[in-house]
Amino acid sequence: MTVELICVGTELLLGNIVNTNAAYLAEKCALLGLSMYYQSVVGDNPERLQELCETANKRSDLVILCGGLGPTQDDLTKETAARVMGRSLILDERAKEEIRVFFERIHREVTDNNWKQAMVPEGSIVLYNANGTAPGIIIEGEGTTMILLPGPPNELVPMFEEQVYPYLSKRKPEVICSKMLKICGVGESMAETRILDLIEKQTNPTIAPYAMTGEVHLRITAKADSPEQAFALIAPVEAELYRRFGDGIFTEEESETLEGAIAKLLKERKLTVSTAESCTGGLLSGRLVNVPGISEQFQEGYITYSNEAKEKLLGVSHSTLETFGAVSPETAREMAEGCCRAANTDLGVGITGIAGPDGGTAQKPVGLVYIGCCCKGTTYVEQFQFRGNRSKVRESAVANALTLLRKVILQEIRTV
Amino acid sequence: MTVELICVGTELLLGNIVNTNAAYLAEKCALLGLSMYYQSVVGDNPERLQELCETANKRSDLVILCGGLGPTQDDLTKETAARVMGRSLILDERAKEEIRVFFERIHREVTDNNWKQAMVPEGSIVLYNANGTAPGIIIEGEGTTMILLPGPPNELVPMFEEQVYPYLSKRKPEVICSKMLKICGVGESMAETRILDLIEKQTNPTIAPYAMTGEVHLRITAKADSPEQAFALIAPVEAELYRRFGDGIFTEEESETLEGAIAKLLKERKLTVSTAESCTGGLLSGRLVNVPGISEQFQEGYITYSNEAKEKLLGVSHSTLETFGAVSPETAREMAEGCCRAANTDLGVGITGIAGPDGGTAQKPVGLVYIGCCCKGTTYVEQFQFRGNRSKVRESAVANALTLLRKVILQEIRTV
Repeated sequence: MTVELICVGTELLLGNIVNTNAAYLAEKCALLGLSMYYQSVVGDNPERLQELCETANKRSDLVILCGGLGPTQDDLTKETAARVMGRSLILDERAKEEIRVFFERIHREVTDNNWKQAMVPEGSIVLYNANGTAPGIIIEGEGTTMILLPGPPNELVPMFEEQVYPYLSKRKPEVICSKMLKICGVGESMAETRILDLIEKQTNPTIAPYAMTGEVHLRITAKADSPEQAFALIAPVEAELYRRFGDGIFTEEESETLEGAIAKLLKERKLTVSTAESCTGGLLSGRLVNVPGISEQFQEGYITYSNEAKEKLLGVSHSTLETFGAVSPETAREMAEGCCRAANTDLGVGITGIAGPDGGTAQKPVGLVYIGCCCKGTTYVEQFQFRGNRSKVRESAVANALTLLRKVILQEIRTV
Repeated sequence: MTVELICVGTELLLGNIVNTNAAYLAEKCALLGLSMYYQSVVGDNPERLQELCETANKRSDLVILCGGLGPTQDDLTKETAARVMGRSLILDERAKEEIRVFFERIHREVTDNNWKQAMVPEGSIVLYNANGTAPGIIIEGEGTTMILLPGPPNELVPMFEEQVYPYLSKRKPEVICSKMLKICGVGESMAETRILDLIEKQTNPTIAPYAMTGEVHLRITAKADSPEQAFALIAPVEAELYRRFGDGIFTEEESETLEGAIAKLLKERKLTVSTAESCTGGLLSGRLVNVPGISEQFQEGYITYSNEAKEKLLGVSHSTLETFGAVSPETAREMAEGCCRAANTDLGVGITGIAGPDGGTAQKPVGLVYIGCCCKGTTYVEQFQFRGNRSKVRESAVANALTLLRKVILQEIRTV
């Protein structure tokens, strides 16, 4: 069953608000096994909205409209949808009563324009709104069903969860299940190259790659008659991805982060870590402290932006800084070892680099970053050349520092 | 001139990501005086994308496509747009060279699929990408112009700012000028309440508020026949906003950040600052190091997540921690003073709080944060009760620490 989404609102076309409803509804529809091929945004213009509704009704089984159900003159979604579906509007007594009660509760008089929200297309299912005045509407046509939802997320979300999801669950044709594998330490195109053969021949299940800085997330999705059958289809693909990416896969959990996965490893192995940051200036420690309850594993970190701070706080030797410079494998090594010693931790991570936009040279260009990680007497140092602006370089450095830290914890690193 | 937006990506149709590009581009187009009537989202499906491009080309003067320019097989935006515009793809030598250099710098081999990013529609304007491998494209047709942009926001935004905005500015029909005022230290609804009377009666110029954590940005926009006339319309509104928000306005520059404004103040007054962070774990220092060239003003910072670290690195007294607890005005004060002393700086900022989700009590609930700031012998401490999840609490703490730091530098603080 195909579904299409139409969001109505001039504020979306002006960029005044971000369309979070679209992401919310798209995710829910995907979970329901509905195939969404189109999302559209139009303003509060009846001609353009009507044309779009007609197009949508032709090409999709289900059309979800959100926004434009309110009391004002330019709220025209219901009127337009009713016209497209050939229904007239009739008064819904319960909707009228709910509007009266709503205003009573907030101690305001009902302004006349509010009553139009009690008019509903004849023969439709009315979705009463506990969090606002405009009810939602389901119009079941012969070919298409249209579902109209209020625009404010605090009304739309509960209405969808409590009324629309159960309605659609009963109608959905098949089960869709998916499994997430999150990988660190490979770029997007590298990840894709390694699975190109799988993607080329895929039908069911499918693999969808999604790239973030320093991470690639692969979602395996299967359709079947039951969850058991769907997961049986997913299992061999998952096994194959594990074979190809191995320890690069840091989690299978949708909501797990790289720092969260590392915190778990540290906790399991009863290890502590400290950080020494130059160009990233605290972003690495900031990522670690994202994890609630990290305090047993991470207790202190050092921002050593100047050479003096590197010497004073970390004990980086003056001659190392003089001979090799602040951005060098030697300094990264001494920073990692220095914070380990100063904080008395099992592991230490040091980052030094040139984030730009200035400060680069031919020998040491902007984007050059050294990351050191020491663990119980052994120190590993990696060199990176990142691209992008200052913020991208720093973000990449942090992602790769986390990846290196994880590798060292797993004891599977090769020295560079 | 009408503009239409097509975002390409299955991840949008699956609801895996929120379409922030649409809001960004819509806002910029509105600023340019372009009328946007439609936004659409399609997946990585060439037939549906082609159909949508054809429809868009018929009804809009300008079509902006974003996403689907990458190296992988399902990146088909460029191929589809070229077909719709009747152009063949030719190799762009500079794009090819940039891809080669990019991979050389990151010490990786170019996987074959990357080269397709160097193919561009003949006769198009190529927008080279400093932050990624896929260039953007402008195809000027007889009726319509298509602009293709990469999907990742960190590539799309700078490409739009630096290359597309200037291109479109030259083509726009009337003059639209705007002025930005960025305010810290007031919430969105408070800011809006203070200017409600101005917003209600506005026609030209208009004031558009935009809220971020700890900041509100007000954009005053005027339409006129010349920039001089537009700015003459803006001037009295700007003066009124200065009267209402005063020193809360930290910059008028579009690209200036709060930390950037603070860095300028520090530099002007030849002041240095250090940081001591508990619950924010380095995010404050990370914000300061966002500013290129901050190294004269900020040289070191301390992440003191544990009580031991607070004592050892900052000299917070054991009895303060015992008597008042780690989350207390007393500890915030000693953290600020401690980092000031340890780093020998003019100013010191200390943050301690309960970011959650656990660790809250009736007396000290989740979201309670104390921020101390000391300056040459005087220490100011503020108490905050933030709402939201762990990450929101930490973000709010950092924004308010920057605001407090700025107030202290301006010497206009009242002790709490």
